[in-house]
Amino acid sequence: MMEKRMLDKPLDGIRVVDLTQIYQGPYAAFLMAMSGAEVVKVEPRGGERLRGAGGSRTPMAFAMLNSNKKSVTLDLKHARGTEILKDLVAQADVLLENFALGTMDRLGIGWDVLREVNPSLVYVSGTGYGLTGPDRGLLAMDNTIQAASGIMSVTGDADRPPARAGGAPCDIMGGVQMYAGALTALIGRARTGKGTLVEISMLESMYFTLCSELTNYHASGKIPERNSARSPAGACPYSRYECLDGWIAIISVSEVHWQNILKVIGREDLKDNPDFSSPPKRKKVEDKVNSMIETWSQRITRDEAYKQMRDSQVPVAPVRDLEEVRTDPHLHERGMLNYMSHHDMGDIVLPNSPIRFSDFDSSEVQFFPEVGANNREVYTAWLGLTETDVDRLAEEQVI
Amino acid sequence: MMEKRMLDKPLDGIRVVDLTQIYQGPYAAFLMAMSGAEVVKVEPRGGERLRGAGGSRTPMAFAMLNSNKKSVTLDLKHARGTEILKDLVAQADVLLENFALGTMDRLGIGWDVLREVNPSLVYVSGTGYGLTGPDRGLLAMDNTIQAASGIMSVTGDADRPPARAGGAPCDIMGGVQMYAGALTALIGRARTGKGTLVEISMLESMYFTLCSELTNYHASGKIPERNSARSPAGACPYSRYECLDGWIAIISVSEVHWQNILKVIGREDLKDNPDFSSPPKRKKVEDKVNSMIETWSQRITRDEAYKQMRDSQVPVAPVRDLEEVRTDPHLHERGMLNYMSHHDMGDIVLPNSPIRFSDFDSSEVQFFPEVGANNREVYTAWLGLTETDVDRLAEEQVI
Repeated sequence: MMEKRMLDKPLDGIRVVDLTQIYQGPYAAFLMAMSGAEVVKVEPRGGERLRGAGGSRTPMAFAMLNSNKKSVTLDLKHARGTEILKDLVAQADVLLENFALGTMDRLGIGWDVLREVNPSLVYVSGTGYGLTGPDRGLLAMDNTIQAASGIMSVTGDADRPPARAGGAPCDIMGGVQMYAGALTALIGRARTGKGTLVEISMLESMYFTLCSELTNYHASGKIPERNSARSPAGACPYSRYECLDGWIAIISVSEVHWQNILKVIGREDLKDNPDFSSPPKRKKVEDKVNSMIETWSQRITRDEAYKQMRDSQVPVAPVRDLEEVRTDPHLHERGMLNYMSHHDMGDIVLPNSPIRFSDFDSSEVQFFPEVGANNREVYTAWLGLTETDVDRLAEEQVI
Repeated sequence: MMEKRMLDKPLDGIRVVDLTQIYQGPYAAFLMAMSGAEVVKVEPRGGERLRGAGGSRTPMAFAMLNSNKKSVTLDLKHARGTEILKDLVAQADVLLENFALGTMDRLGIGWDVLREVNPSLVYVSGTGYGLTGPDRGLLAMDNTIQAASGIMSVTGDADRPPARAGGAPCDIMGGVQMYAGALTALIGRARTGKGTLVEISMLESMYFTLCSELTNYHASGKIPERNSARSPAGACPYSRYECLDGWIAIISVSEVHWQNILKVIGREDLKDNPDFSSPPKRKKVEDKVNSMIETWSQRITRDEAYKQMRDSQVPVAPVRDLEEVRTDPHLHERGMLNYMSHHDMGDIVLPNSPIRFSDFDSSEVQFFPEVGANNREVYTAWLGLTETDVDRLAEEQVI
């Protein structure tokens, strides 16, 4: 018989009540689950909103964000429902929620109530703008936070309207900050024994992403314009370059990179040319620099251009589409991405957590739970209810 | 005499050796410092690379990312330097580094060495592609990770080349994942007593940001194209709309939002029109929908358009430039942003951590340290050296 490895997961034994929906909060709960916490997703009887957002088929985002969680149903608008929520909270270490401001209070299960139920509770609130200040309570989605945070103002081309950055960076950044905030509080709690409210706003989570543009602004006094084809600070070359069948992104961070680029594109004649001997000088002739690189890249394929630059130690990457990313051998070999076959969704790729440890076990990706799949298990194990009690709650449409 | 409040900071007593530079690692160390950890930034004698990147003036990014840290100098290419680094590690809980793959090993202070020095050390590595897999070791910057992660492929307009998302989302996302990973490991260590290597890759940190586009891809079978003016999934309306003097971003998440939008733009005649009665139906006539909204928005100012939508409970935000963000009364009232006057940089705005707690003290923003400002303090307090020892190390150019 094989000896079991003497490892476990870092958050083993941590219990999480997860009231979150859509992207921001569920990502925080996902990270907790993958690190070993027991995450109980508490859903309305019809299921969390994102489950049904794709019509008859589960949206891929829901599958990605809800792996390794348990699901219970609970009607929080039912008086017995909020009592049961309090009973769950009494057994929990962490509660996560990303409702609109005031929702939890209206349901009678806000922080002031739950801290009385469980004085060591870590209660994590994720909102768009935070719980205080003049803009508290404004409705927020990734798209509007991109506008309010300034990101949209510096994405796209100057001769076109502001552009949304692809993906949902504000939601996911807010989610990982919720996760980080929960853990920070758990560490503080281990010393003080006290719980706390942890407050995360998506808007605030994004401010640091603009540090290049803010540097540029401070140095030049000019408000940065959108210029997605150039460096937000002073690097040059720094752009995406057209190839026969796609694009590559290149950035020169040091003069060694610049010299290597010259070799690759066959322009070593410029290696000692004073007009190109520093980033500020190249910035002055940036169109010329970029055009020299494209003269080379437009004659070869993206993969050939990528290989040549990579082999010459230039920071470079192909501009990959989502099929390439989803099937990336590197990400699959590392276990970040996993081919799986789901009875309803078919053959899909599901991601793991980006956080990994040498001396703790990592979690294998387990499919998202069906709505209420763990009602019986959680309500008996956490609350000590009997199976008959659970059946009755279901009949009474409380769960 | 006022009684001191009986609060403290969540990471009080945690000691961090911070070997990081540029953006990703320093952001992780910044979050640790703001949560109360003692963060010692270990810099080459000439200072971390980003300090001097702006020529004579400290770059704003450096000031933002290095608040509330201590600085010591240490020459890691000097044999005595690596010995001192090991002595620091012996006293530390966490080490953060974001060197290129293999650098720490070449210096003789890799994870295998440092775990022997301190078996309970949490050693956090931040790289572009991770420590294993075929692409490990590739040079990576925010720009190239945007290309490799697929973000660039879905940012911008379909008739133009792929666009870089504004800001440095990959660096900052990688940084907060490093912070979250460190804390996860500290919680595991509290139970097992064991340290661990924590591994974060920027590429993997970004995968979840694409969950809308991956949902769309799974549902439609079509690889998503860049379309920064539309929803990556099925929402409609969802765009930025031109006003007299700027733009606003609007998103309709529910039919209530749609009805409210119709009221604001004076098109209640369409409220029961079956051609507009669901997101999929509006998607089919998206150009018409967007044009109706701009017929309204182009006649008024951005702030007026924003106010009308906001007052009608539509998720909306003005597209703000960086001066508006930097001076946002909401962010200043909340203490996320702070007006400060620096002897060298002048009047500047410095951000706090986006993570805040009701029942722990928060940190006030303290200026970044000068290079080696804490040599004497740290080398005497952590290592028990005498002031004479410290002076000699400086003379010998070890520190």
